[in-house]
Amino acid sequence: MTTRSLTLLAGTALSLALNSAPAAAEEGMWTFDGFPRAKVQAEYGWAPDGAWLDKVRNSAVRLTGGCSASFVSGSGLILTNHHCVASCLFDNSTSGNDLLDKGFVAASLPDEKKCPGQQAEVVTKITDVTGDIKRAIGASTGEALIKARDARIAEIEAAGCTDREKTRCQVVTLFGGGQYKLYTYRKYSDVRLVWAPEDRAATFGGDPDNFNFPRYSLDGAFLRAYEDGKPVRTPNHLKWNPRAPKEGEMTFVVGNPGSTARLYTASQLAFEREVRLPVTVATYSELRGRLIRAMKESPEHEREGLDALNGIENSLKVYIGRTKALNDQTFAARLAKAETDLKTKSAGMAGIGDPWSEMDKAVQAYRPLFLAYRFTDPAGELYGYAQTLVMAAAERAKPNAERLPGYTESALPLTEKRLLDSAPVYPWLDELRLEWSLSKAREYLGADDPDTKLLLGRESPEELAQRLVSGTKLAEPVVRKQLWEGGQAAIEASDDPMIVYARKLEARQRELEKQVDEAYSGPATAAAAKLTEARFAAFGDTIYPDATFTLRISYGKVVGWPERGAQVPYRTTLGGTFERATGSPPFDLARAFAAKEQQIDKSVTYDFVTTNDIIGGNSGSPVIDRAGTVIGAAFDGNIHSMGGNYGYDPVLNRTVIVSTAALQEALETIYPSPRLVKELAAK
Amino acid sequence: MTTRSLTLLAGTALSLALNSAPAAAEEGMWTFDGFPRAKVQAEYGWAPDGAWLDKVRNSAVRLTGGCSASFVSGSGLILTNHHCVASCLFDNSTSGNDLLDKGFVAASLPDEKKCPGQQAEVVTKITDVTGDIKRAIGASTGEALIKARDARIAEIEAAGCTDREKTRCQVVTLFGGGQYKLYTYRKYSDVRLVWAPEDRAATFGGDPDNFNFPRYSLDGAFLRAYEDGKPVRTPNHLKWNPRAPKEGEMTFVVGNPGSTARLYTASQLAFEREVRLPVTVATYSELRGRLIRAMKESPEHEREGLDALNGIENSLKVYIGRTKALNDQTFAARLAKAETDLKTKSAGMAGIGDPWSEMDKAVQAYRPLFLAYRFTDPAGELYGYAQTLVMAAAERAKPNAERLPGYTESALPLTEKRLLDSAPVYPWLDELRLEWSLSKAREYLGADDPDTKLLLGRESPEELAQRLVSGTKLAEPVVRKQLWEGGQAAIEASDDPMIVYARKLEARQRELEKQVDEAYSGPATAAAAKLTEARFAAFGDTIYPDATFTLRISYGKVVGWPERGAQVPYRTTLGGTFERATGSPPFDLARAFAAKEQQIDKSVTYDFVTTNDIIGGNSGSPVIDRAGTVIGAAFDGNIHSMGGNYGYDPVLNRTVIVSTAALQEALETIYPSPRLVKELAAK
Repeated sequence: MTTRSLTLLAGTALSLALNSAPAAAEEGMWTFDGFPRAKVQAEYGWAPDGAWLDKVRNSAVRLTGGCSASFVSGSGLILTNHHCVASCLFDNSTSGNDLLDKGFVAASLPDEKKCPGQQAEVVTKITDVTGDIKRAIGASTGEALIKARDARIAEIEAAGCTDREKTRCQVVTLFGGGQYKLYTYRKYSDVRLVWAPEDRAATFGGDPDNFNFPRYSLDGAFLRAYEDGKPVRTPNHLKWNPRAPKEGEMTFVVGNPGSTARLYTASQLAFEREVRLPVTVATYSELRGRLIRAMKESPEHEREGLDALNGIENSLKVYIGRTKALNDQTFAARLAKAETDLKTKSAGMAGIGDPWSEMDKAVQAYRPLFLAYRFTDPAGELYGYAQTLVMAAAERAKPNAERLPGYTESALPLTEKRLLDSAPVYPWLDELRLEWSLSKAREYLGADDPDTKLLLGRESPEELAQRLVSGTKLAEPVVRKQLWEGGQAAIEASDDPMIVYARKLEARQRELEKQVDEAYSGPATAAAAKLTEARFAAFGDTIYPDATFTLRISYGKVVGWPERGAQVPYRTTLGGTFERATGSPPFDLARAFAAKEQQIDKSVTYDFVTTNDIIGGNSGSPVIDRAGTVIGAAFDGNIHSMGGNYGYDPVLNRTVIVSTAALQEALETIYPSPRLVKELAAK
Repeated sequence: MTTRSLTLLAGTALSLALNSAPAAAEEGMWTFDGFPRAKVQAEYGWAPDGAWLDKVRNSAVRLTGGCSASFVSGSGLILTNHHCVASCLFDNSTSGNDLLDKGFVAASLPDEKKCPGQQAEVVTKITDVTGDIKRAIGASTGEALIKARDARIAEIEAAGCTDREKTRCQVVTLFGGGQYKLYTYRKYSDVRLVWAPEDRAATFGGDPDNFNFPRYSLDGAFLRAYEDGKPVRTPNHLKWNPRAPKEGEMTFVVGNPGSTARLYTASQLAFEREVRLPVTVATYSELRGRLIRAMKESPEHEREGLDALNGIENSLKVYIGRTKALNDQTFAARLAKAETDLKTKSAGMAGIGDPWSEMDKAVQAYRPLFLAYRFTDPAGELYGYAQTLVMAAAERAKPNAERLPGYTESALPLTEKRLLDSAPVYPWLDELRLEWSLSKAREYLGADDPDTKLLLGRESPEELAQRLVSGTKLAEPVVRKQLWEGGQAAIEASDDPMIVYARKLEARQRELEKQVDEAYSGPATAAAAKLTEARFAAFGDTIYPDATFTLRISYGKVVGWPERGAQVPYRTTLGGTFERATGSPPFDLARAFAAKEQQIDKSVTYDFVTTNDIIGGNSGSPVIDRAGTVIGAAFDGNIHSMGGNYGYDPVLNRTVIVSTAALQEALETIYPSPRLVKELAAK
């Protein structure tokens, strides 16, 4: 799993998304049914109409790996980022044929390669089910609230999508519990790799340049959706427009921002700053160090560890950026002021009560559970497979409405696909992650803690990780398939050490899940519902829900920003790459850039920035002009966008985009694909 | 350099020590001339008299490696911690003879082994020079204040100790600038290793058990001071008393706490919490990860990296503990209240003004300098040698009063000893550290920052570290000696790549030092002087200066503490080790423990805790009973003592001590040394 740049980040599952104060300037990740037409019209003198919005919505693709994308031809061709297909390149590589390193150009349709675990989804319908869910919740509280809600969600989803081969239904919690909407998707579970540049072309500047601008990154790639072994027909697609962006022109970004926390209450922010972020940064930093060193051990390790390292470094940069934002005194004061404003405005409103105190109580109750909840969930692909198999065996035996969210009828197909798709597992890397997570558990919980004893027994983290990884057969898809199909009986009969280990942890994990629901998730959902009422009452429909990895649209314009007294230019050119290259990694030229320097048109716009409000999960989002044509793929934010999880700053926050102009030059000259050039140019 | 457990920690050089509100209960690291006799008499019904205090002061030893210790025989025998001699064991080891692993028992005097860089010091005189220094400072501010102060300090020190072979003079800044005292030391620069247990006996439980209790650690060792090749006569020494401590009995800890920040202003605490600690924890965590993995590469790496890893893990545990303390809402509120109280009490006092605002201004001015200041100072022994040589060459050419503090006449002998003493350097480890620090510099400063460009040029951190470490000859003491003796001409003529690199950075490092003095150190010193006046006016002499790695005495008693509703017992026994052992590192028995289980008296008190107020630097401090005899060596604090940098909690903070009873059992049975048993028993 790649989590680089703007891909959806792990570890935010408990984030409760709460809506902010009224959106300022270009702020906002708007739902399509809540797009602020009048505001945009007033600010820009033009706003898209319903037909325009429908068209781009029907062309927008969600990639279940954690990215966004769009159809750009009538034959299922999908534009996204290179870093969104890095895992696919990685999974299709061998030590003799490193596609991540070399890039990949499929000469013809039959050469296009399947991406394990990947699925493309297009929203076809959005239905408001708020009343339905709230009735099901009724007066319940704590864990009972979560159970009642999830049960009703499971029923609604099951009833909504009876054809689970081609559709997916998902009820989304908006405003942390203020609204519930049923999203219906057309899904394509066979997604194949079509074109990707060399890794170095996309990651030029590496981690040092990640989240920076000026930038010189060819972070674009193409996939294709298939069905029944054939490319899908996609009459709804965006027109490919390989022109340079114009400074000041209006842009729209359509994609799936993963998660934001724009109006966490002060208590929730304090928990982030005081507890979650420090633990996360310290532990991930150590993992990063272990992996950096392990990758020097051999060329195989260097290749096999790269995708994981990129993901870890990206996550870390995000978490460190968030830490800085919350520790920035000006930024923190702004967030505090927004809370005070809302309290003032909603004072005395009927039925609101004091949701801030309720939220505070929930957070205080969560604090003593946090470390146990976090560290009783070991890391690694192989343990993850085991955990899924063990949980699924028990859950699938229950009625749909009583299952945990990931195992309901509507959720099972993707869970199954991710479990059974064939993808390489590197035992050394899995052992490294498992050992790390177990040793961090012991560190944070303490050697004498009962959970540490449950996790380790009398073994050391090193011994245990080694025993489990070397002994398990779960790297084989066929073994996973047998256990999946064998259900509870097969799980109980298994002596695979990883399955045995996952079984050992299961009861405690379920117990902690319940405790967290009771202490935090339930009360926080109830508080969030009240906060949402307060906000709508105070600000009307000038507010947008926090990001939930569902389809949103943001508007903005092409423009640089002021930095230390100077203006950062809005774009770079392909030629700039050659000036920035030092020859030393990660500032070494991609081989094709070096080889074709003379042929490359150096004046072509490479990357550019806009004021669009996006966040992780938006990676690969099409950047669309007024005419509705695509002029780029968003792949990153600038350094100031790090605080975007908590608040948007129109002066400094910027979206970073690779231009279609640069991708066109790449398709024609650097990594030539006449086939794609032709397909993209088709009327 | 070992920095494990309570040894003085690096990275606190800029800490301004400010005195707290009046000391509560056993709180306080008292100077010998400020010992609160009346208070102790009132609380305990007994207090030491002047003769008692003189005797223990004259027996107390400071180890320049960052530890405390005491003379325990008339022949220069020194009791300290195993972790204070770990570097000496390490430096005397070879791949075929790992003394750190095996332990060391010198059969006779000629077998005792020199400890590189180590020096033992005994305070002989303390003179108040506050008026003198304050006159020299006069009305100067900013960098000029620091210069004037340091110049006068250099003069006072040079005049005070004309015999630099045997004495050392050091002016200590107390209360962050409120008082200045000249400490005169008798020094012994030939310190040898006499006895140490196996590493596992001292580090049983390893990092997981570090700062924890109940504890099973034989963290004791013996050194001996030599002069002219013979053991030093030490008629002033503590009587060895190998009895078990009694619950509730009174104890004194005499040693050199390194640094505290007990009454940082809110601005200084905010800087710690918001900036310094997050950067430190993230970067050290990555270093830890790199080293953990590198040590798995070969048995040599495992041995050669251990001392460094122990130091890093200990530092990290401290920094993570401090982060937790400052993020603890109750603890933070207590610190805030202390500041408010002092403000209230000193409102309207003549001459006080508003030092809080002055300190805030200084901190705000420091913030934008911090990253450059921190990251333009690369890591590694070899770079450290080069930097010392380059700086010393320039500084030694200046008049004494114009030199930087580490290079004045009084400071030079120790600087020279540390530079020229022979100690092994492991190139892979040095390269790892240098590469890490350069890559973190690029990460935190940014790839385009002028300081990053100065540090890296067009090389990557990996390439540069490899080139410098493989090319330098500074691992050879004889090469360092030539460059030291050759002075400026030799440094300028050198083409050793590490020297060339240190020369390249020199000007910028000096510039930043000046900028920090001007923006922060000068104004903060002035503000601290006023805060000290305010505190003395408000609280009289019930206050003690923050720790400065100078001799202090703390009082307390033997007692456990309440934890989750139960009382933690005050002691462990040797027998408990066998129950706690799992067989898996770091909970595996030391070989001698396993081999001699039958002979060991399991009922002997092993480690115990007291309420004494100590901190890093106190490691090895003698724990003394009312009779003035030594009953243990302090080696750690419990987990609650982590916040001790900022405040002492009498209910929870505890000092962790290895008993003389356990050491006696070790000397008789586990690692037998009849010679030492006899020497310690002598009248």
